[in-house]
Amino acid sequence: MAELDSTSSLARFLDGEFCEAKSEIRREISRCALFQSNSYDLTLDQNRDLTAERLSHVLGLPLIKKQLKDQVKEGQRGFLTKSLGIAELVCAADMATGVKLGVVCGLYGGAINNLGSGEQKTKWYLPVSELEFTGMFAMTERGHGSNVRGILTEARYEPSMQEFVIHTPCEDAQKMYIGNAMKGQYAAVFAQLSVNGEAQGPHCFVVPVRDPHGVLHPGVTVIDMKHKEGLHGVDNGILIFDNVRIPRENLLSKFGNVSADGLYSSPIQSKSSRFNAMLAALTPTRLGLTVQAMAAMKLGLIIAVRYSHSRRQFGPKDQDEVKIIEHQTQYLRLMPHLAAVLALTFTTRYAAGLIDAALYRGEDLQSSRFLQALVAGLKAYSTWENVACLQECRECTGGMGFMMENRIPALKCDSDVFVTFEGDNVVMLQVVVRELMTQYAKQLLSSPVSGLIRTWTSSASDSLRTSFLGITVDKVGDLRFLLKALSYRERVLQRSLVARLHSKVEKNKDEFFGAWNSCLHHVTGLALAHIHRVTLEQFALAIEECQVKDDHALLSKFCLLHGTSLVYQERAWYLEHKYLTPATSRKIRTQLLDLCKSVKDEALKVVSDFNIPACCIQAPIAGVSNPRAEWAFYSQPEAPAVQKTLSKL
Amino acid sequence: MAELDSTSSLARFLDGEFCEAKSEIRREISRCALFQSNSYDLTLDQNRDLTAERLSHVLGLPLIKKQLKDQVKEGQRGFLTKSLGIAELVCAADMATGVKLGVVCGLYGGAINNLGSGEQKTKWYLPVSELEFTGMFAMTERGHGSNVRGILTEARYEPSMQEFVIHTPCEDAQKMYIGNAMKGQYAAVFAQLSVNGEAQGPHCFVVPVRDPHGVLHPGVTVIDMKHKEGLHGVDNGILIFDNVRIPRENLLSKFGNVSADGLYSSPIQSKSSRFNAMLAALTPTRLGLTVQAMAAMKLGLIIAVRYSHSRRQFGPKDQDEVKIIEHQTQYLRLMPHLAAVLALTFTTRYAAGLIDAALYRGEDLQSSRFLQALVAGLKAYSTWENVACLQECRECTGGMGFMMENRIPALKCDSDVFVTFEGDNVVMLQVVVRELMTQYAKQLLSSPVSGLIRTWTSSASDSLRTSFLGITVDKVGDLRFLLKALSYRERVLQRSLVARLHSKVEKNKDEFFGAWNSCLHHVTGLALAHIHRVTLEQFALAIEECQVKDDHALLSKFCLLHGTSLVYQERAWYLEHKYLTPATSRKIRTQLLDLCKSVKDEALKVVSDFNIPACCIQAPIAGVSNPRAEWAFYSQPEAPAVQKTLSKL
Repeated sequence: MAELDSTSSLARFLDGEFCEAKSEIRREISRCALFQSNSYDLTLDQNRDLTAERLSHVLGLPLIKKQLKDQVKEGQRGFLTKSLGIAELVCAADMATGVKLGVVCGLYGGAINNLGSGEQKTKWYLPVSELEFTGMFAMTERGHGSNVRGILTEARYEPSMQEFVIHTPCEDAQKMYIGNAMKGQYAAVFAQLSVNGEAQGPHCFVVPVRDPHGVLHPGVTVIDMKHKEGLHGVDNGILIFDNVRIPRENLLSKFGNVSADGLYSSPIQSKSSRFNAMLAALTPTRLGLTVQAMAAMKLGLIIAVRYSHSRRQFGPKDQDEVKIIEHQTQYLRLMPHLAAVLALTFTTRYAAGLIDAALYRGEDLQSSRFLQALVAGLKAYSTWENVACLQECRECTGGMGFMMENRIPALKCDSDVFVTFEGDNVVMLQVVVRELMTQYAKQLLSSPVSGLIRTWTSSASDSLRTSFLGITVDKVGDLRFLLKALSYRERVLQRSLVARLHSKVEKNKDEFFGAWNSCLHHVTGLALAHIHRVTLEQFALAIEECQVKDDHALLSKFCLLHGTSLVYQERAWYLEHKYLTPATSRKIRTQLLDLCKSVKDEALKVVSDFNIPACCIQAPIAGVSNPRAEWAFYSQPEAPAVQKTLSKL
Repeated sequence: MAELDSTSSLARFLDGEFCEAKSEIRREISRCALFQSNSYDLTLDQNRDLTAERLSHVLGLPLIKKQLKDQVKEGQRGFLTKSLGIAELVCAADMATGVKLGVVCGLYGGAINNLGSGEQKTKWYLPVSELEFTGMFAMTERGHGSNVRGILTEARYEPSMQEFVIHTPCEDAQKMYIGNAMKGQYAAVFAQLSVNGEAQGPHCFVVPVRDPHGVLHPGVTVIDMKHKEGLHGVDNGILIFDNVRIPRENLLSKFGNVSADGLYSSPIQSKSSRFNAMLAALTPTRLGLTVQAMAAMKLGLIIAVRYSHSRRQFGPKDQDEVKIIEHQTQYLRLMPHLAAVLALTFTTRYAAGLIDAALYRGEDLQSSRFLQALVAGLKAYSTWENVACLQECRECTGGMGFMMENRIPALKCDSDVFVTFEGDNVVMLQVVVRELMTQYAKQLLSSPVSGLIRTWTSSASDSLRTSFLGITVDKVGDLRFLLKALSYRERVLQRSLVARLHSKVEKNKDEFFGAWNSCLHHVTGLALAHIHRVTLEQFALAIEECQVKDDHALLSKFCLLHGTSLVYQERAWYLEHKYLTPATSRKIRTQLLDLCKSVKDEALKVVSDFNIPACCIQAPIAGVSNPRAEWAFYSQPEAPAVQKTLSKL
């Protein structure tokens, strides 16, 4: 294909596996009339209708149709990696469409395919690929968002009718923020199952919400939540069930089933483990949030970096004004985010690869505590990083960045919700730490707290001390120094957290919730330290696979910048722990400034190699003309001279 | 009045001077139908029309009519303080109305009243108080936003006609982002004056844009910039002048005038000083940005703090879930912002008082470099603080905070522009440092750089060393310790900046722009250090005036929190400079956590004492019912038991 031939080696490397599939999606989006303009000036209803139309178009694309059919099968090699690649591009084209695709295929589809039987998949998911209906995912309740174990919706089995009765007992049990609530036909509803008066914990049920003509199922009430900060094309609503009757077959039965005569059975005995298994089965979907955030960050950076290389302001006396990218503050604000999105690209690829490999081998995701921690941590880190990145992009583009025509405002508003939805970030960070602790504890077949103290305290101190002594000031420019520093921080925070919890719970006999809560700042710090370390490691490992010399050199600089930026952020901690001396800490700052300066021109090549179609970028200040806002147009900047040699590969 | 009687002593203290005027505005807003609901679901045109109607209503209020008439007179005691008090409440009612009020009275009005003659004020501003017309402020150009000296619009004097010809010579000279551009009648236009072929630098001219029927003045083109991230009610546009002829009398003549026969005269000889004087005369308007940001922060905090005291999630096993404010991360995210908005309240009051006193005495604002620095620094610090604060408020209210009904999203989108408009924050911080440097240099009648080095380096070291040695670990809980620390940081950064610039410019003979740019990170750090120090000092000084014991105690805790939070943010720097030991640094962190926890319940009283009418708060999650979103309603939380005693004053 012509497009592929003109793609640089770096663009191909950043695409990774399934680059042909991605190219096909790029071509489809570029030629589809529905994706040629932004939609911020539509009414809420028009916006939702357009999004529904865009979603139908996407679901109808041959490549995606095939992907949906593959989703029903088990053991598809690289299924998640491919799905995420597609999802990122759909999000880049339109975030609302990407999020609705995530609701229908990732969440609803994830529930049916991971919690249901083969027959159930055929019945409730395969028709989605034929555009027969769409679904929604009803887990969150008004009173219980992030604390899903506490949901109150009831599912009582009635043996006489062989039916479940789904019921909303109180206001706090209303299913809230449900995406596709105003348009979808079926909902995967989480509810507390009771059989013969015995509580079996949360299970997932397929509940019909409305028929193809839009008529609501008896007993179902839907309230439109209407206007949000962003994602105007996503119809969020509230579902209320008034003793809604559904057939026995509508319980997704992989982790628990009820026989016709009302006998409950499950492959997992403990109610708590059973629910954990269900949640673990939904892990792959969570990685979708990270690629949504990455799509937004990449777009923001393309726009901000290009404009910074076009717009001029201030300069030496009696000379031309300089490009704003030349201002120290400007490159210092943008470059670390560019490094972070590269790190996220490789870390997400790594996580998806692990999940794909596990699923291909038919393994249970729940047992991989490390993987659960990684995915939860990536969700929190990437979505916060996205908020910070887009805010810098908005500010670095000045008044132009506040105009809707220039895309950044909508990206900000659309993606702002990612930090709290699908698991609030603060809760996600707690998941990271709990998973890590459980993993260690399991290895010891002991209680989390006391077991951990023994291993962590004994293992950590010696090797850490050694690594500390091995450091000389000259080495801060060495990636190994940065990797060691991140690893040290993670391990010290782990060790000290366990010691603190141990002291509170086992010595002072504090109640666990209170003890944990009093360490929450510590917990979130540890979780971020963990994910920071993994992103730098994965960035470094990915570069080793890069065969093209110039690309390797360029990525290495960004990798060093990412590590430098992460250590710089936490330099207070390193100074407190005497891991950095004051002189070394200052050296880190100088290194950050120097690296940001040294990559500011190459940044143009990197954003270009994100290979996002112009119809997704939209912004006139990034060189995409728009007759509605001629005043905003700046020609796409040419790469500065030095850079040109590098990009000629 | 009943309202006044029921107001607590703290609310009265926070109101300060002109509390009767503020109460009157509160009553007017509360009973005006135009301010009873939010307007996010209107079209752009409806939104603009509603805002225009709101603005007319506000301008027509007796109290504001009188204030506008006072603005024309000179030497009104406390004029700015009173204006800012009014402006903050109008912004709280509707940010777009507040910003348009700022455009018409602060910017257009500021230009006419500060740069014009008595006759000009009567002609072009007094009619605004009679609702005869409104104005706009046309300084920013496409190519020159923050670098106003570089504007390109031309104003050529034609003696034959006794007219100025206002002309836009190129695309980059178009007046951009002009507020009220689609509705206003007159514009205060900044253009490069040339008389008899001689350039006299930028001056301000009153240019008629359209007549009362909306017909554009000959040669004027207006382009609608339409959709923005927020402030939908503000009509921003582009003004283009094609040899527009205006009478000689339309040059605002305070700092420069042209006689009928074409002779230029000015009380200030240097072109550069002349323009500085004009900009300085506009300083009071800049303080308006800070109160706009404060209005947004207060609303965000009212909503987030109340919801955090209502909503429950997670908790000890087999017990009720706890209020989310009890989570350590939740109070740690919100309380420092509450402390900061209190500090800003007192610092803004201080700055406004200084300006009012100077103007009352008929002094020239330009000569007070410290005041220029303070206002520029407050603009940058308060607007960034607002962005950070509202983001935390949004995240701390979860999905509810993403719903338009709950007010926070619109506040975020409306106030996001403050960080770049009316002077980009990064430019503002450079203004702070340049003003401070010029102040010192002026005292020495010497060049900025070399003069400064001599004073700063000699004065700083001794006293700083002494203060350093006087510190013991036990004192971090003492406000004086924190004040000293902030002061130390400011002075060391000053000294080292001057040394670096000296070395670059005088020793290495680097070009000044390049030298300055290579220190930009340092410059912005110094500017923030300066403003941080001033806010803590002013907070501490204001508390000394508080007569009510319980209020004094409460404010003292928040003041200590503000100082702790500022030192905590920069603890890496203090560790690098060995001003904090690792142990002291850890102690600061513990103190931050403890203080945030200790004020979390009193926070309910503080946000209540902001005394913002319910129709401005709007959010159902903060206890303001809304039939359109019954699902979002949470009753206003009662103060926890301990707190009740305190609030009973």
